[in-house]
Amino acid sequence: MASLDSIVKKLDALSIKPAVQVAHAETTSPASWRDALIASGSAPASFELVKTLVYKPKTAKTATPVPVVVIARESTETNSGALGKKLNLKELRLASEDLLKEFFSLDKDSLSPLSITEAVFPKVVTVLDPSITTSSSIFAVHANSSSQTLFLSGKDIESYLATLETAEVKVLELDQTAAAPAAAPAHKEKATHAHKEKDESKIEGAVQIAIGVKKEVDFPTWYTNVLLKADMIEYYSVSGCYILKPWSYSIWEEIQSWFNSEIKELGVQNSYFPMFVPQSVLEREKDHIEGFSPEVAWVTRAGSSDLEDPIAIRPTSETVMYPYYAKWIRSHRDLPLKLNQWNSVVRWEFKNPQPFLRTREFLWQEGHTAHLTKTEADKEVRDILELYRQVYEDLLAVPVIPGVKSGKEKFAGGLYTTTVEGFIPTSGRGIQAATSHCLGQNFSKPEMFNIFVEDPNDGSKSYVWQNSWGLSTRAIGVMVMVHGDNQGLVLPPRVASIQVVVVPCGITAKTTDEQRANINNTCEDIAKTLKKAGIRARADLREGYTPGYKFNDWEQKGVPLRLEIGPNDLAKQQTLTVRRDNGAKNPIPLSNLEVSVAELLKTVQSDMYNRAKEAYESRIIEVTKWEDFVPALDNKCIVAIPWCDEEACEDDIKERSGRASEPQDERAPSAGAKSLCIPFEQTRWAPIEPGKTKCTGCGKDAKHWTLFGRSY
Amino acid sequence: MASLDSIVKKLDALSIKPAVQVAHAETTSPASWRDALIASGSAPASFELVKTLVYKPKTAKTATPVPVVVIARESTETNSGALGKKLNLKELRLASEDLLKEFFSLDKDSLSPLSITEAVFPKVVTVLDPSITTSSSIFAVHANSSSQTLFLSGKDIESYLATLETAEVKVLELDQTAAAPAAAPAHKEKATHAHKEKDESKIEGAVQIAIGVKKEVDFPTWYTNVLLKADMIEYYSVSGCYILKPWSYSIWEEIQSWFNSEIKELGVQNSYFPMFVPQSVLEREKDHIEGFSPEVAWVTRAGSSDLEDPIAIRPTSETVMYPYYAKWIRSHRDLPLKLNQWNSVVRWEFKNPQPFLRTREFLWQEGHTAHLTKTEADKEVRDILELYRQVYEDLLAVPVIPGVKSGKEKFAGGLYTTTVEGFIPTSGRGIQAATSHCLGQNFSKPEMFNIFVEDPNDGSKSYVWQNSWGLSTRAIGVMVMVHGDNQGLVLPPRVASIQVVVVPCGITAKTTDEQRANINNTCEDIAKTLKKAGIRARADLREGYTPGYKFNDWEQKGVPLRLEIGPNDLAKQQTLTVRRDNGAKNPIPLSNLEVSVAELLKTVQSDMYNRAKEAYESRIIEVTKWEDFVPALDNKCIVAIPWCDEEACEDDIKERSGRASEPQDERAPSAGAKSLCIPFEQTRWAPIEPGKTKCTGCGKDAKHWTLFGRSY
Repeated sequence: MASLDSIVKKLDALSIKPAVQVAHAETTSPASWRDALIASGSAPASFELVKTLVYKPKTAKTATPVPVVVIARESTETNSGALGKKLNLKELRLASEDLLKEFFSLDKDSLSPLSITEAVFPKVVTVLDPSITTSSSIFAVHANSSSQTLFLSGKDIESYLATLETAEVKVLELDQTAAAPAAAPAHKEKATHAHKEKDESKIEGAVQIAIGVKKEVDFPTWYTNVLLKADMIEYYSVSGCYILKPWSYSIWEEIQSWFNSEIKELGVQNSYFPMFVPQSVLEREKDHIEGFSPEVAWVTRAGSSDLEDPIAIRPTSETVMYPYYAKWIRSHRDLPLKLNQWNSVVRWEFKNPQPFLRTREFLWQEGHTAHLTKTEADKEVRDILELYRQVYEDLLAVPVIPGVKSGKEKFAGGLYTTTVEGFIPTSGRGIQAATSHCLGQNFSKPEMFNIFVEDPNDGSKSYVWQNSWGLSTRAIGVMVMVHGDNQGLVLPPRVASIQVVVVPCGITAKTTDEQRANINNTCEDIAKTLKKAGIRARADLREGYTPGYKFNDWEQKGVPLRLEIGPNDLAKQQTLTVRRDNGAKNPIPLSNLEVSVAELLKTVQSDMYNRAKEAYESRIIEVTKWEDFVPALDNKCIVAIPWCDEEACEDDIKERSGRASEPQDERAPSAGAKSLCIPFEQTRWAPIEPGKTKCTGCGKDAKHWTLFGRSY
Repeated sequence: MASLDSIVKKLDALSIKPAVQVAHAETTSPASWRDALIASGSAPASFELVKTLVYKPKTAKTATPVPVVVIARESTETNSGALGKKLNLKELRLASEDLLKEFFSLDKDSLSPLSITEAVFPKVVTVLDPSITTSSSIFAVHANSSSQTLFLSGKDIESYLATLETAEVKVLELDQTAAAPAAAPAHKEKATHAHKEKDESKIEGAVQIAIGVKKEVDFPTWYTNVLLKADMIEYYSVSGCYILKPWSYSIWEEIQSWFNSEIKELGVQNSYFPMFVPQSVLEREKDHIEGFSPEVAWVTRAGSSDLEDPIAIRPTSETVMYPYYAKWIRSHRDLPLKLNQWNSVVRWEFKNPQPFLRTREFLWQEGHTAHLTKTEADKEVRDILELYRQVYEDLLAVPVIPGVKSGKEKFAGGLYTTTVEGFIPTSGRGIQAATSHCLGQNFSKPEMFNIFVEDPNDGSKSYVWQNSWGLSTRAIGVMVMVHGDNQGLVLPPRVASIQVVVVPCGITAKTTDEQRANINNTCEDIAKTLKKAGIRARADLREGYTPGYKFNDWEQKGVPLRLEIGPNDLAKQQTLTVRRDNGAKNPIPLSNLEVSVAELLKTVQSDMYNRAKEAYESRIIEVTKWEDFVPALDNKCIVAIPWCDEEACEDDIKERSGRASEPQDERAPSAGAKSLCIPFEQTRWAPIEPGKTKCTGCGKDAKHWTLFGRSY
């Protein structure tokens, strides 16, 4: 067993500096350990405990057992039955003291991630709770016995284990019979495959461990884990900012490409406006700036010089663009003016950030148009909203409900806001998916930006009617939340950068080189044929990876369709198709493959949409009595109520529903319900009878059926 | 004549607040006026004079003359002969005192832009020196007599005149026989068309006035004027930032689309990294940060809270990305890693900004790749440089010379920098067009970002070899400078968002509605046919604009090819083609038009390149004696010298050539020459003989032929 000194030295070599190092009395339970740490006075203000559990699978008497070491947050539920099932290991039981001594020379209370040394690592299967890696908590771990505790970050723990893994992998490389990848894979869980039989079901099982927590159990952690595991994002050193890796950025490129061609048809042109706004200009519209000022990032210094006046980074570009609209629009011939830009904007949120949903910098498009008449502006607002609906429903297979925002929820400084509202079944919350605003003449009036043309008929000044509309990378987050499952990401075919992966299978020791080449070539040919037909296909011919590893890899990343090609398939001139969305497996003939695959992708796309649509619809509850309101929310639904459309009532509903409801997850933004939208389609509910139908909130006359819910 | 009070009141109504208002003794010359203003003590610290000149063309005795009023900076050269030629007015002479009295009730020394009132404006042709509009100077103008001076900005003067123009246009609208546009066009010069005969040549002449100054005479002003007139950019309220209007942004989109498809072939993937960098990370590479820190913009405040640590806006993303490269690259299987992003970066230059060339925020792509071996990195550096060469030479028709930067000029913190160097014949200056850097292992080494893999053979750590490469919107500026002429922009067909404009012509009072419809339909059909063949064509069927106005408009905007369709063309089933690049006019048959137009566009593209190439080549002077060095620079050439490749020598050359050279335009960045590049192609010059060929700079042994020049 390593001494405390040698452990600290080793960590130091890895540039890991334990936050605090504490000695305390021996303890036997987590609660007493925690108490002792706090009592010692040298623990950090807030920390979490790590539990290290060792399980032993049923093993033939003649064989050496391979224990499973689980490193998890104290709060993570671990169940030996479920774990065994995932790992396909039989009768997993907590290891005996003897086994612990044999493997670790330790008793169970002294076990810690640091007990796993280079010597031990190759002999055990190590499972790391991924939520440790992504957590910002400080974790208490035993140093070398239960009497000494070190405080490490989740990343420190991961780094420590990563070193061991490298050591292990070297051993594997010397042993060329090992089926696992020769070099260290990024994810710890995969390294464990080497210890298991070559059975794909086990690997599929292990994926569930990879995602770490179940979507239904800890949704926020599941969400970030899926994003990390599917290679969508990376956490960044500036809080609230995230790196969009190619796997997510390519989705954005698909959206861009489709949306660009659609808006160009509408006569919109792309352009680029600076990211900076002088303070005086930003603050010209009072309501507008009130909405944004708490979140504005200010540049006050350049090089070593202080700027004379601070300059804002755009939170949105109304005030950046409209002084120039005033200059450019001189005559009705200059109308309509329709500009769009793809850029990033900055809103320095102080709430808990979430990748894609609430980030301090995000990518979006913002369209800004000016029109001669309100009729024309109104029409465009709806035309754009329809495009947003199509982005969500047709591209991302995410159902949305188009409607109007309440006065309280509309865009700061605008006339009215239309929205497509999404829904996340797992959390039961609504989410604003994209908005198309009519700004009216609010920004064009003389005391604002003074944007007018002379009326061609009577020479009077006509202040222009303006719209602005935006769709952000939030769309990607909504898509992940709606479609993802416990195996990872599920991508709708239309936005997947790889729609079909072709994997060679069934290659064994008996396979001849010729057969192997034949299988690989067929995979390549299939990918080429599909690509030629406009299908984004790739053959995964990576050497040194098992088919199971590849299945796992692409499933985690959400590739919609897998084609398997083995010797039997080849003989029958067929391929096995495996759908990511529902796991359905079907052999199809190789002849005319591009047609059947294209069909299948279409089916996947529409099935994904239909399932999500059904989930959304089933969670819209018609509520006409207040006492049914909060129970519906607590049942993870949103409610449709006849509503008076008054702000005081909305405030009251939010307050009352927040107070009455069950305690919520701390990461959830709010327990009170707000209005999501007044759907354009009102006919699905009984007609509002003027003077008769009453508002569910306040009992006054109702005006429209309105959706209320908890939301993001 | 208006009183001073009424003028100030009127300006006030336009929200124009004269900076200062000064009374002074009457003067008769600009010099004495300036002196009197300075002597008065209430003039601004720095100002310019405006001259207002009135010319009278030869006019039939029975007709009322239409005087030409020229409002220009005192420093702008005005020549009545040239002016008359441009406006196609005969024998333009300075107006007599009588005529001034008749039109303005003023003597010549009291004339000023403010003398042009609503009453006078319709009776004269007003020509505004566009450099007044774009200048940041304060201009002195007489208020109502030579004894009272107001100080106005160029924009104020423009705004004042714009009001008059609106007044005039209203009059035109009542008179439906007027051929000019019914509503106010954005550019003053065009409003003057109404006063002239309907002769296209005059309108074409007027364009030259529109650009204001000749390319050869005042290149910096010509450049900004072309950008403004061609609707490429708009000046922005934050100095050094510019709005990219659709006409320029579409060029960027063309470059993006081509470059994206090329780099994707090379296995590069697009991604997005945050715009923010924590100070500590930014400052990790010493040489790198030294190169950038004077220009870094710092965010220090969010909402009303000061940030704990200031956060930089990326000047480039090495330090943003490489901590994550260290995390992601664990094994040789993770190599090569090739990411690119399209974004904007901020370098808070304190030098005089110029649109596209030197701006505080600019758009670019930055590629960042990591490789196992130097060989692989070296190869990619050159592959990318070749793509940059193609962007310039094939897309923008701008010749460049590929080579290596000197040690002094290489990228801060990198190993070596390759470049494609452009040349601006009009200024005789070199310009760095795009760079592809090999960073070596400088950023990957352990004390920096520690990016390594275990060598698969011996288990040792291999620090990765990195490249970074970038191409910015500067490319657009170079293209404008190289190809633009005194009519405005000239676009190479491959990047023009409209390649062909089809204009209906020859419609007169005698034309029947049927004939007119026939001509318009033919124009539409031609545009459709061309579009179908992949040619970006548009029929300009705008009502109320003369063909001449349209010719002018599209020429100014640089559309490569114009097709004219008149009754005669229709009868002969032909169209007149007019090339923007050289003005060549040729009738071609309508049959098979898409083939002949495609051919012609190809010819335009290659002719543009060849002309520019010839200009570049003719200005590279081989210099082996120092005494020939500066004269070559002063002759607007760059020099090729045998060079020792030593930094001290480069410093010395810069210092000596700067000192020796003639005084330069104040807007020019430097009079001293620096090394532009060591061209890869050395064989065009006599071989360097080791120990024999001496450096032109210092006389030591020369190593390579190297290009030196003044540069941007």
